Formats: sequence, C-alpha cells, structure tokens
Amino acid sequence: MNHILEAQQFDRPYLEKLFKSAEKLGKKPKPLLTGKILATLFYEPSTRTRLSFESAMHRLDGGVIATENANEVSSAVKGETIEDTAKIVSQYADVIVLRHFEKGAAARAAEASDVPIINAGDGAGQHPTQALLDTYTLQKEAGGIDGKTVALVGDLKNGRAARSFVYLLGKFEPKELVFVSPPELAMGEDIREYLTRHGIPFRDSESFEEAHAADAIYQTRIQKERFASPEEYERFKGKYILTSEYAASMKDKGIIMHPLPRVDEIDVAVDTSPHAVYFKQAKYGVHVRMALLADLLGR
Amino acid sequence: MNHILEAQQFDRPYLEKLFKSAEKLGKKPKPLLTGKILATLFYEPSTRTRLSFESAMHRLDGGVIATENANEVSSAVKGETIEDTAKIVSQYADVIVLRHFEKGAAARAAEASDVPIINAGDGAGQHPTQALLDTYTLQKEAGGIDGKTVALVGDLKNGRAARSFVYLLGKFEPKELVFVSPPELAMGEDIREYLTRHGIPFRDSESFEEAHAADAIYQTRIQKERFASPEEYERFKGKYILTSEYAASMKDKGIIMHPLPRVDEIDVAVDTSPHAVYFKQAKYGVHVRMALLADLLGR
Amino acid sequence: MNHILEAQQFDRPYLEKLFKSAEKLGKKPKPLLTGKILATLFYEPSTRTRLSFESAMHRLDGGVIATENANEVSSAVKGETIEDTAKIVSQYADVIVLRHFEKGAAARAAEASDVPIINAGDGAGQHPTQALLDTYTLQKEAGGIDGKTVALVGDLKNGRAARSFVYLLGKFEPKELVFVSPPELAMGEDIREYLTRHGIPFRDSESFEEAHAADAIYQTRIQKERFASPEEYERFKGKYILTSEYAASMKDKGIIMHPLPRVDEIDVAVDTSPHAVYFKQAKYGVHVRMALLADLLGR
Repeated sequence: MNHILEAQQFDRPYLEKLFKSAEKLGKKPKPLLTGKILATLFYEPSTRTRLSFESAMHRLDGGVIATENANEVSSAVKGETIEDTAKIVSQYADVIVLRHFEKGAAARAAEASDVPIINAGDGAGQHPTQALLDTYTLQKEAGGIDGKTVALVGDLKNGRAARSFVYLLGKFEPKELVFVSPPELAMGEDIREYLTRHGIPFRDSESFEEAHAADAIYQTRIQKERFASPEEYERFKGKYILTSEYAASMKDKGIIMHPLPRVDEIDVAVDTSPHAVYFKQAKYGVHVRMALLADLLGR
Repeated sequence: MNHILEAQQFDRPYLEKLFKSAEKLGKKPKPLLTGKILATLFYEPSTRTRLSFESAMHRLDGGVIATENANEVSSAVKGETIEDTAKIVSQYADVIVLRHFEKGAAARAAEASDVPIINAGDGAGQHPTQALLDTYTLQKEAGGIDGKTVALVGDLKNGRAARSFVYLLGKFEPKELVFVSPPELAMGEDIREYLTRHGIPFRDSESFEEAHAADAIYQTRIQKERFASPEEYERFKGKYILTSEYAASMKDKGIIMHPLPRVDEIDVAVDTSPHAVYFKQAKYGVHVRMALLADLLGR
Repeated sequence: MNHILEAQQFDRPYLEKLFKSAEKLGKKPKPLLTGKILATLFYEPSTRTRLSFESAMHRLDGGVIATENANEVSSAVKGETIEDTAKIVSQYADVIVLRHFEKGAAARAAEASDVPIINAGDGAGQHPTQALLDTYTLQKEAGGIDGKTVALVGDLKNGRAARSFVYLLGKFEPKELVFVSPPELAMGEDIREYLTRHGIPFRDSESFEEAHAADAIYQTRIQKERFASPEEYERFKGKYILTSEYAASMKDKGIIMHPLPRVDEIDVAVDTSPHAVYFKQAKYGVHVRMALLADLLGR
C-alpha cells in the first residue's frame, strides 16, 4: 500500500508513467474502479480540490463518500483523534483523500489507516497532487520540463503549491528556476538546499520583469496578512500583476500557470491569451488524479 | 451548448417534446448519462432543488459532485468571482446546476462556463426548472393547459416560483390567470406586460374565493417580513389558508399545487384530498429534470 | 413497506437471516441495487453513521443523495415539518436514512414517507442499525451470543447505543449481562423490565473488575456533563479506562467492543491487542447495512 504524502516521494520513472496514464485517461476515461469507494475527509474546505478528486473517481466509475467540513462534525467535536477517524473511515472506503489544517496530519492518518491516504494539503505542509498536476501541465503545455526556465512569482515563502511544485521540478532537469518575490516572501532555505543537492540552478529577483523570458510563469497570490505592516503590503501590491501587455511581451510559446483561485494577480483580460493555461491546468488535475487513483486502486 | 437561464427561453414545441420525454423517463429511467458528471454549485442552501437534481442524474446513471454551501467555502472566501468558479468547475463536470443569491449570477456564470449552466434560482431572478415542473404537473394533472383557468395565490410580487411559472404559462393558451394576493404583494408589471403581449387574459383579486372555480390553484407562502407593519401582515394572515372545506368546494377535477415547502397556507388535512397534487409535483420535478439533463447531455 | 425504527422490532429468525446476508455481502458485494437511490437526511451531523450507510449503498451499486446538516438548510429554516420533508424526499429516493435530535422523529417521518425510513438515531431514542452491527460483531467475534456473558461499561443511562444493543441481546439467550457504571449512570428501568420479561439474567456493579471475565466488554464513553458536579465526575473519571494490562488479564477469547468514537476510555495501546475488535465493528457496520438495504430495496 502506498500513501501519497509529499511531492518528494515520487521518482522520475513513476512520474513519466503516471503522466502517460493521465494522457490516456484524459482522452478516454475507463471504468477501472467499479465497486471501489473514495472518501473525501476535509477538515477545512477546498471545493476545487475536493470536486476534482470526486470527478476523477466518478470518471473511473468509482463511488464517493464525502465530508465537506469534517472538523465541524460530531466525531471531531467529541474529541476523536485524526488517527482514529482515519482508521474508521478506512473501514468504509478504498482510499481516503485528506485535507487538514495541521502540518503532518496526513502522515499521522497514514500510520493508522488500512487504505491509502492521499494528502490533499496539510496546513503549512504539502499538497503533492497539486504539484503533480502542475508538473503535468508544464510538460504538456511547455513541451517538456528538461531545459526549460520556470519563473515562480508571488508568495514563495508560504505558498504550499509553489513549494510542492519545486520539489517535483527537482526530479527533472529544468534549465533554471527564477524566484520572483518580495524579500519577505522569498523561497525557503529547505527548498534551496534541496535544489542545490539535485543540481538545479536557481536565482532570486524582486523584479517581475525577470519572469518575462521564462518558458513558464507560475503566478501565485500574495496575501495582505503576510506582511509586517499595511505599508509594506502596499509597496508590493500591484508590482506582480500579470496584465495583457505583460502577456503579449512573453516569449512565443511561454505559458502562464496559476494554482487558482485567482484574485487580481492575473488580469481577466489575460484569460483569452494563448499564453494562459491555468484553466486547462484545472482540467489536467482531473486527468492526473484519475491516473493516480487508477494506479493506487487498480493494482 | 444551451444554458437554462430563464423560463422565457423555451418555446412550446420544445416544452411538448420535453414533457413527453419526462413522461417516458418517469415511468422507466434509462442509463442515458453513464460517465457524465453533474456538479451542484449552491451558494445558498436549497435541499429540495439540489436533491431533486441529484436524484434525476443518478436515475440516468450519471455521477454527481456536490457543494451544499458554496459561499462558505474556500474559493469564495478567498475572493474568487462566480465567473472563475464556474469556469473551473466546468473543467470537472459536464453540466453545472447553480443556485445563487444574486439576480443575474447564472447568466454571468454561463458567460464563463465551458459546459451548460442550469439556473436553479438566482436571488430575485428566476427558477426556470421549477417552472418546468409546475407546468408539467398542470398539464398532467389538470388534463392539459390550453383552455384552463389557473389561480395563483399568495405573494405574487416576490415569489420567484410563481413568476417563473406564469412566464411558461404564457407559452400556452390558458383561458385565464387569476392573481389572488394582498395589494402589497400583487403580480409585477413586467409579468402583466408579458401576458398582454402574448394575449393571455388575467385579472386580480384580493379574495381567496375567486380561486375556487379554477382548474388549478397554485398556492404559495406569504412571508411576514414582506409587509410594512405587523398589523398589515395580521390583516392578511389566515385569509388565504387552504382548508379541507375549501378543497371540498373546488370543482371536481380542480387541482391544488404548491412549490413547497409549505408552512400553514395549506392545512395538512388537505394532503389526503384527491385535489392535492403538490407531493406528486415534487416527484414530477425529478422526471422533468431527467428529461432536461438527457436533452442537454445526451446530444 | 418496512421502516426500521427501533431494535425491538426484529425477531430472531430475521436477525439470523440478516446476519447470513451480511456475511455473504461482506465477503463479496453484489450490484443488487442498481438504479436505486438512498437519501441521507441528517439533522445533526454523524459522519461515521452517514459514511457507513453511503458506503453500503455504493457497494451495492446504488446512488446516494445526501444532506450533511439538514437543520441548517432552507426548508427547515422556513418552518417545514419533518413529516413534509420526509414526504418530499421520499419522492426523490427509494429509502431515507434519518438522523434527528428529537426522540420520535423517525416514527413521525415514517408516517408521512412513501419509502422506508431507517432511524439512524433520534435524540434520546434509538439507533437500531448500531444495535444490529453490535450484535453481528458479537456473534461473529465471540463465536455466538447464546450462553455468553456481556459486560456493558460506562454511561448506560444515556448511552443510546448501549440501550439499543441490549434490546437486541434480549432476542437471544445470553448467559448474563453485567452493567458496570457509576450509580448515576445506571441502566434504565425500562431496559431492566424488558430483560426480566425476556428472562435474561443481569446484574449491576460499580467495579470495572466485574467486566473482566466476560466474553465481551462493550465499552462506552462517560461525558463530564452528565454528572451533578465536577467532583462527582472526577471520582469516576479514570475508573473505567481500559488499558493494555486490563486487556491482557481478560479471558482468552474475550473481545472488546466500542460504538466509537473513543476518547480515552480505551487506551490506544489496546488497539493492537487480539481482544480489540472495535475497528472491525466499524467495518461490520457496512456489511450489516448492505444486508439491510438489500432486504428493504431488493424485494
């Protein structure tokens, strides 16, 4: 049994096999999981992630039992541990997709569960299936990952999606990663050490113009509450807004990605640009999750 | 691709075809939508509408991904627009049933979505599938619509269901519509103009007795908060309560409809009357929605 | 049509037939309920019960329409009675699983519904399917029920699960029931009379040591708020905690059951003991519910 807990756990051959399967199932889903049940156990809401997983399971003819807001519900209120809840729900389902507000919750659940746990985000921890779909999108829309330059923009310090994505990029051979952020929100030391260990070149910049020439821009949201003062926030607000003009100045095949939801860091006018792939990215999420579920449960 | 946004959009041939299909599928559902997915995106709760759609989808062997209370969930909280949410969810599903508290929300979602949007109520706007099931019920239980007298009773000013129903009745040739309500809650000018344009006779009355001789009474709830003062409310409260005695005095084949939920405007003793068809109406809702989903997705 | 309202309604031949079916379906579920729909109507949250029923329905290839928190939703807010809600939902589904905070709610819903109602807990009332799964677990894991000694421990006065379980035990011929509880939380008079009437021996004890030699210990939670004073609670808190040492001193084939969720009345170290069957109990819940649904809907 394999739990899906963090982006680092995958190796390149597994990813390549998974992406091939995603490609196939994306074109034509198959009833591979008839009679199987997926449980979504969400201790904080995340509509998109939950619906994406449920859609993937249905496309493969599996059943879904869902909890939209598990921490309001009776067992949690009564003081049940996440281990007990996972153990019990694993008696009902063949796989559990867990979203939790505490880092490490997925690993704790995995210790107790009788079925695979898929970490769908655990607090400041990871969100490995988001990283899978981001990497799959990059490969598919930028024509590969090796030799490409990827610029990650925004809150790289706290952004779980950006962090998990970089872990996966480290499994390939990108030409360079460019970290564009205010110094307060710079990419963490742990990620830098990881990249150095894997021999992936990277550099930092405060200037959004540095993202410009990349093969892919991974745009993320900057949250006001991350700054020490409102003045600090105002200094950066607006510096990283991706407009139509910006998109038009990108290289020919350059793509714009975003984990979504988007607030105003990408102008809606960009949506119709050929560079914009962020809604496709959402669709690819279903494809990658189909491939993952088929792999975990179809064995 | 067709969105279902307002009752006016249907023409009589479409309605007749739809009702025939509802009749057939109601008798014997078919696995017409295997592998298809319906998403319910509800920004305000509406158990009956949601469950009715989900039931219809399951009866046709389709899958359902559901959001019971979308405006409490993460994306909306983070400031995502309804357009973005619709665009994203349309990557996961083949049709979206949307309930929203703002008039026009369904039309905005339809602009962005890659799949059909079904408006399941948008604030003071419309609720076209409620109108479809009401019209289907009238045709089935009153033996047709042309030549029939329909009395609408209660809050006709604010009642979204009553308003949408009248729009659909305008596609047929009823003998007369009777609007029974307190003057404060009279049917709006827009509807009157619409009926005049379509040559449908109608008249107003404050007296519940005027509903009496109709082929169908469409009873609705009057909400206290709609009145200028509690005294005003007290004046009308009780004037329009449909009792067993009232039911017994109706014409032989006259029917009593109600969009439900009912509070006390129909006595529970009426439930066993042969005139009462409001629970059948709920069942017919599933049949009509099956026909609609089959039409939208089975193409 | 049969409603499932209270544990007393079953007779022994029915239970034996049901348990045989649970055994078979637990080993190999069958698509017995294709095209059928189960509605979960929960007026208070109970994740485990809801997910267990939904899992059972999916395993039999049926569809599910769900309400996680029905009393927050529109119809209830608008003042709809439980009778009306049940009547309406019975137009959408083939069976309704109802959880309510009021004793007697399930019986009221059953009066109105056009399809079977399964009581999944009604306030201080009953929870008959919990009793079914408890009895099934006892039979399966203790090698039968007749001639066995069962010790029930904890809050026997308010514990709905314990009370419902004893009603079912009364249908068999256990050797003896031992009620281990603080005097404040002793088993009620109604149950004692029932057992006397059925000729089942029972005795009371305050001492946890009395549970020790039983073939099965049914452990339950003691809630602080049940006591007159915090001092009273402190006197009993800790007296009934089932530890590894306690488990090791049990008779060879003795089993430990618990309706779950568990807080600290069973040490987590006990989970790996061969005596512990409480997580199996959760799995058997799905099996018994499959058998029940197949019986109700497969006719």
